[in-house]
Amino acid sequence: MSDINGERLLADLRALATIGGQADGGVDRLAWSEADLAARRWFADRIREAGLEPRVDAVLNVFGHVPGSAAPRLLTGSHLDSVPNGGRLDGAYGAVASLEVLRSMVESGDPLAARVEVVGFADEEGVRFAIGLIGSLALTGALDLEQLREGRDWQGIPIQQVIASAGREVDRMLDAQQHLSSIAAFLELHIEQGPRMEADGVDLAVVTGIVGVYRAQVRVIGRQNHAGTTPFRLRHDAGRAAARAAAGLRELVESIDAEAVANIGSMRFDPGGVNVIPGRAAFTLEIRHLEEAVVRRIAASFKMNLDTICAEEGCRAETEQLSWVPPARMDREQMELLEAACRELDRQPARLSSGAGHDAAILAPHVPTGMLFVPSIGGVSHSPQEATSDEHLVLGARALLRGVRASAARIK
Amino acid sequence: MSDINGERLLADLRALATIGGQADGGVDRLAWSEADLAARRWFADRIREAGLEPRVDAVLNVFGHVPGSAAPRLLTGSHLDSVPNGGRLDGAYGAVASLEVLRSMVESGDPLAARVEVVGFADEEGVRFAIGLIGSLALTGALDLEQLREGRDWQGIPIQQVIASAGREVDRMLDAQQHLSSIAAFLELHIEQGPRMEADGVDLAVVTGIVGVYRAQVRVIGRQNHAGTTPFRLRHDAGRAAARAAAGLRELVESIDAEAVANIGSMRFDPGGVNVIPGRAAFTLEIRHLEEAVVRRIAASFKMNLDTICAEEGCRAETEQLSWVPPARMDREQMELLEAACRELDRQPARLSSGAGHDAAILAPHVPTGMLFVPSIGGVSHSPQEATSDEHLVLGARALLRGVRASAARIK
Repeated sequence: MSDINGERLLADLRALATIGGQADGGVDRLAWSEADLAARRWFADRIREAGLEPRVDAVLNVFGHVPGSAAPRLLTGSHLDSVPNGGRLDGAYGAVASLEVLRSMVESGDPLAARVEVVGFADEEGVRFAIGLIGSLALTGALDLEQLREGRDWQGIPIQQVIASAGREVDRMLDAQQHLSSIAAFLELHIEQGPRMEADGVDLAVVTGIVGVYRAQVRVIGRQNHAGTTPFRLRHDAGRAAARAAAGLRELVESIDAEAVANIGSMRFDPGGVNVIPGRAAFTLEIRHLEEAVVRRIAASFKMNLDTICAEEGCRAETEQLSWVPPARMDREQMELLEAACRELDRQPARLSSGAGHDAAILAPHVPTGMLFVPSIGGVSHSPQEATSDEHLVLGARALLRGVRASAARIK
Repeated sequence: MSDINGERLLADLRALATIGGQADGGVDRLAWSEADLAARRWFADRIREAGLEPRVDAVLNVFGHVPGSAAPRLLTGSHLDSVPNGGRLDGAYGAVASLEVLRSMVESGDPLAARVEVVGFADEEGVRFAIGLIGSLALTGALDLEQLREGRDWQGIPIQQVIASAGREVDRMLDAQQHLSSIAAFLELHIEQGPRMEADGVDLAVVTGIVGVYRAQVRVIGRQNHAGTTPFRLRHDAGRAAARAAAGLRELVESIDAEAVANIGSMRFDPGGVNVIPGRAAFTLEIRHLEEAVVRRIAASFKMNLDTICAEEGCRAETEQLSWVPPARMDREQMELLEAACRELDRQPARLSSGAGHDAAILAPHVPTGMLFVPSIGGVSHSPQEATSDEHLVLGARALLRGVRASAARIK
C-alpha cells in the first residue's frame, strides 16, 4: 500500500497558514471574513488540482470527491476558520490532511478513493456569531438558516447577510446542497489542543466522546451615574456586579464537578467612560462537560449566584442562551477501526475524551463518527503559539489514511 | 440693578441640548466630535449675536468679551463637551449661564461688562483620551500639546491630529491664544451632580474644594489558550485576574477612607472569543479624594492587591497613570463674594466640597477661583436622566450674575 506524501502535507499546511497569517505566526480567519473566503478558494483549488471535483454548499462548506463517483461515501475533514489571533493547525490540519489522504489514494489508483469525500467546514469556532459549528449544523439540517434570529448579528449585520454576501464571492464554484443521507461515516483528525498526550508521551489518541458546550450572553443592567459624586452605597454598578460574578466562576464550577470547565472570554462595560459608573455590562459564558446534567447544574448555579450579586448591587441580569451542543459519544466501530489503523503504524493509541467541541460532535448523532488526535506542544491552542511536531503531523495523516481506507471498505 | 433673562437662559439650554441630542433626552458631545464642534460654533454664534467678540484658542476653547475691552478680566464659564450618552446640563449649564450673565450686563449698559469674559471649555470630561480638562489645562499652560505622547490616541488617531483636524473646521473664528495673566479671577457655575443638596433642601452651595482625581490604565497580561482543553489550574486567565481586582475595589477603598470613591468605568477582555481564555484584559481606574495622600494610598494598595492576584493567576499587570489633577481649594475671597451673592437673593448657601472634577480645579492654583452649585434631581449625572429644576437653573444664574459683578468690581 502506498502512503501519504508527508512533505506535501507540511507544505500545504504552511501555504494555508499564510492566508490570514499574522506576523506572530498565528492566523486570523474569522468565519466568512476575507481571509476565510480566500482559504476556501485555496482549498477548492487544491481539490481541483488533485483531479477531484470541488463543491460548496449554502454556508460555504467546501467538499471534494472523485468525479463521477457516487454516494454513500465516507466523509473526512475538519474546519478552515479560526478564532481571532488563533493557531495555524486548529481545524486546518484535519482539512488539509483529509485532502492529502484522498489525493494519495487517487494517485495510487486506490479503488476505495471513490468512496471518500473530503470537507473544509465553515464557522466551527462560532466566534463571529457566538453560535459555532454552523457548517456542520447546516450539513445535518439541524440549523435552518432562515430561522436564525435577526438579533444574532455581527457589527450590526445579520448572519444571513454575511453568508449571502460571502456566497457571492465564491459563486464560481458549484452550489450544491450536501445531503446527510449520502454520508456513510465521518472521520476527523485534529490536534488535541490540550496537554494530556504530551504529558503521557502518547503519539496518537482515539477520541471516546466530546464534551457538551453551552454558550450564553449575559447582560447586567444597573444605573449609569457620575463616578465622583455618587457614594458607593448609592451606586447600581453593573460593572462591579459582572466582575464579582466573573471572579467567582472558577470556584463555583469546581464546587460542582472537578472535570468541568467554564470560561468568560468576552467582557465589556458600557458606556465605558473612565468617570462614569457602568450602567451596563455584557459578557459571554461558556460551560463544558461530558454530561449534560452537569452543564445544566453549573449554568443554573451561576445564574443563581449572579442574581444574588445583582440584588446586592442594585442591578438585574439577563441570560440568553446562544447555543447548546450536546455531549457526543464516538461510534464504537469507527473507534476500533482507528485504533487498528494506529497499531498498523506500531502505535498503541490512548483513549481520550475531548474538552474541545468539534464538527464530529455535530455529526455523531447522525452518522457513525470517529476522531483521532495528535499531541499539542505545551497543550497550547487558540493562540499563535499553537504547535505540533512535523513528525506527529505526518503520523496523524498516515493513521487517518489507514482508518479512512478501513472505514470506506465497509461501506455497503 | 437689572437681572438675567430666565426664559432666554432656559431656551438657550434647550437649543444647545439638541446638538448631539439623543432620543432619550441625553446628549452625546464627545470632545472634538462633530456634535462638539457644532456646539462650539453655536456658542460662538450666540456670543456674536450678543454683540460680543468670539475667540477660539488652539484646543478650541471658545471665549467671548466686549469688543475693545482690555484685560485683566474676570473669566466665567464651564465646558461644552459631554460624556457619551451624558446629560444636557453638565458643563453646558455653566457655559450658557455665563453667556446669559454677560449678555444681560451688556444690555443693561453695565460698565462692569468690559471686565468680564465668558468661556466654553474643551474636553473637560476626558473620555475621548482619558486625560480630561485639556481645555483648562491648555489655558494654564500646564499642558504642552506638542508633548502629548503618541500613545495617547483615540481609535488609532493621535490627540494632536484630532484637535488639528477639528481646528480646521472652525478656522472662520479668530485663532487667539488666551493668556493666563489676563485673567483676574475665575467663577464657575455647575450642577452638583450628587445627591447632597437635594437631601438637605439647599438651593445654592458655594464650593470649598474639589477632589483630586487620579486616572490610570491597567493592563493584565496572561496567556491566551483554548477554553475547553485547558484545566483551570493550568490557566493564565487575564480576564479572571482583572475581574477579581475589580470585584474587590469597593472594599479596598472603604477600608482606607470612607470619603474616598473610585471607579472602574471601562473593561475589556482580549481577544474576546467566547471559547478563548483571555490573554489580556484592560481596564481604567479612577480614584478621588480631597487629600492627595489618601488617593496615593488607595492607588498603591490597589496595585499591591492586583499584583498579588496576578501572581496567583499566573499573570502580570502594568499600571499607567493617565492623569493626576491635584485637589484644589477654592479662593476665600471669591467664596465670600459668592456667598454674599446668594444672600442678596435671600438664600443662605451651603458649603460643599465637590466629588466631581471641574475646570475650576485646574484654574484654582493659578488665579483666585470660586464655584457655585445648584441641586441635581436625584443626584443623577453623567446620564440622560440628569436634571435640575428650571427654578434652580434660573436662581443659579442670578446668583452668578451677582457674584460676577462683585468680583469684577474688585479687579484693579
